Amino acid sequence: MGEIVRGRGPGAEPLVVVGSVAIDTIETRADRAPEVLGGAATYFAVAASFFAPVRMVGVVGEDFPRADLDWFRRRGIDLAGVEIRPGRTMRWTGRYHEDMNVRDTLSFEANVFDGYLPTLPPAYCDAPFVFLANIAPSLQARVLDQMRAPRLVGADTMNLWIETTRDELGALLRRVPLLVINDEEARLLSGERNVVRAARRILELGPTSLMIKRGEYGVLFFSGDSVFSAPAYPLEEVFDPTGAGDTFAGGVMGYLASTGDTSPAGIRKAIVYGSVVASFTVEAFSLERLRTLTRDDIERRYRQFVSLTSFDVT
Amino acid sequence: MGEIVRGRGPGAEPLVVVGSVAIDTIETRADRAPEVLGGAATYFAVAASFFAPVRMVGVVGEDFPRADLDWFRRRGIDLAGVEIRPGRTMRWTGRYHEDMNVRDTLSFEANVFDGYLPTLPPAYCDAPFVFLANIAPSLQARVLDQMRAPRLVGADTMNLWIETTRDELGALLRRVPLLVINDEEARLLSGERNVVRAARRILELGPTSLMIKRGEYGVLFFSGDSVFSAPAYPLEEVFDPTGAGDTFAGGVMGYLASTGDTSPAGIRKAIVYGSVVASFTVEAFSLERLRTLTRDDIERRYRQFVSLTSFDVT
Repeated sequence: MGEIVRGRGPGAEPLVVVGSVAIDTIETRADRAPEVLGGAATYFAVAASFFAPVRMVGVVGEDFPRADLDWFRRRGIDLAGVEIRPGRTMRWTGRYHEDMNVRDTLSFEANVFDGYLPTLPPAYCDAPFVFLANIAPSLQARVLDQMRAPRLVGADTMNLWIETTRDELGALLRRVPLLVINDEEARLLSGERNVVRAARRILELGPTSLMIKRGEYGVLFFSGDSVFSAPAYPLEEVFDPTGAGDTFAGGVMGYLASTGDTSPAGIRKAIVYGSVVASFTVEAFSLERLRTLTRDDIERRYRQFVSLTSFDVT
Repeated sequence: MGEIVRGRGPGAEPLVVVGSVAIDTIETRADRAPEVLGGAATYFAVAASFFAPVRMVGVVGEDFPRADLDWFRRRGIDLAGVEIRPGRTMRWTGRYHEDMNVRDTLSFEANVFDGYLPTLPPAYCDAPFVFLANIAPSLQARVLDQMRAPRLVGADTMNLWIETTRDELGALLRRVPLLVINDEEARLLSGERNVVRAARRILELGPTSLMIKRGEYGVLFFSGDSVFSAPAYPLEEVFDPTGAGDTFAGGVMGYLASTGDTSPAGIRKAIVYGSVVASFTVEAFSLERLRTLTRDDIERRYRQFVSLTSFDVT
């Protein structure tokens, strides 16, 4: 295990993530990847594992590849919170348009996720960092209820919950200091088209910090009166955007758990690390690129981000 | 005149711009501004005049407001190259969608621009900086032919010329080291959807430097193997996006003419200044915000750009 997680900070603290673990079938204009590893918690956990020990909460079916569970373990991801239930793992099939910012869901089966109620192993409950990936707000709240006194709680959500479970989401948001959503979700949640006004509105709902993911245009981070803009790394080829946002969140939270520095400057640095890992994810289908990624690769691209964004400040 | 152009560098060199000078009618969801000052050369010249002496080339009708010509002059914009011809000034009417990235042209009249052939006053011909705003490539070439030995030539173009005058545009591009276009134009010109691949292609057509404007998502600058990403300044309200791209180009070229520093670092700084001035332009209809803008306002927002983009580089 030492080999793979080399580079992780010695003081890195545990990070709990709950969310979907799935088997995806992905179609792009150029290619098709049937039955590949997917799910928000999966992308998040693997990305975060480059920086900190991850404790995963979720459910898979008996058909979930043992080799992938082994890979998670080798990456230092604790699977004590992952139930293996009789039946099939969650399935999602999506097709990207030529404009890769647009995709259609062709099919979705909740399968073993149907009726799942996340329960945390006792050892998870005192982790200082927790991320509630995109699942029903009631389930996110259930996980939060089981945490003792987390130092930083982050969460994602999606249009479905904003539209159908507004009250539960509202109650959850009052307990979530860091919200990580995309621009479309920010517009829907706030009722504002302008991203700055949307952010101001959302910061009145509970979160004190908000990251708005804008795909190939990067990320805006709002906290108090401060705004930080990080670009996406410009790539010649985006092979598969699936999981880029979850990878970003995993990189951010993993980096924060590794340094413990949740100051504004610490969070900005974490955002760049999250953007770096996400930029690798989209270079291949599913999590394939993350299988061979090294901490050195990450540091090299971090320096490229510096060169991408720096100008004379005097 | 000293009052308004205070802050302009003492060594600022002259900058020639050719392009449209127009009277616009602009409709947004919220409001309507009939018969206001417009045109690419107008936005460019006023933006550049915050930094350097501008020499304008264009044509207006007898109906063009004398007060605006006086304002140009007070800003240090030389109008010796602006013909006043019998007839009406160019007219454009546009309507913005709720998504302000989208607009429809409701009407266009070339009027006195029809048949116009730009001719430079002799004093313009040895200016070291020249910008060919968006007009027919044959007219842009005609201006370039009259320049003695410009140090830096920049140009813009649009879909119409890419689609209808490909050969003339190709010939022009071989003479233009700096191309400043938007992302849609970059895709059309290159035939590539991906912005990085589009840039690589365009850099094979002649320009050694390319700025791709992405509206509210900022600007990407490509030169050799180097890429620079500058965000747009996040505004709570975009009142009228008209002329933002021309203002950006004016700020960039004006700043370069003011410092003479066309090194990669100098160009990055110029891009941030261009973004700053453009962020003011969209705060009001037409050029209204630029009428009251001061160099201090610009410097203040430059520092906000630093805070917007900076993160720990170690």
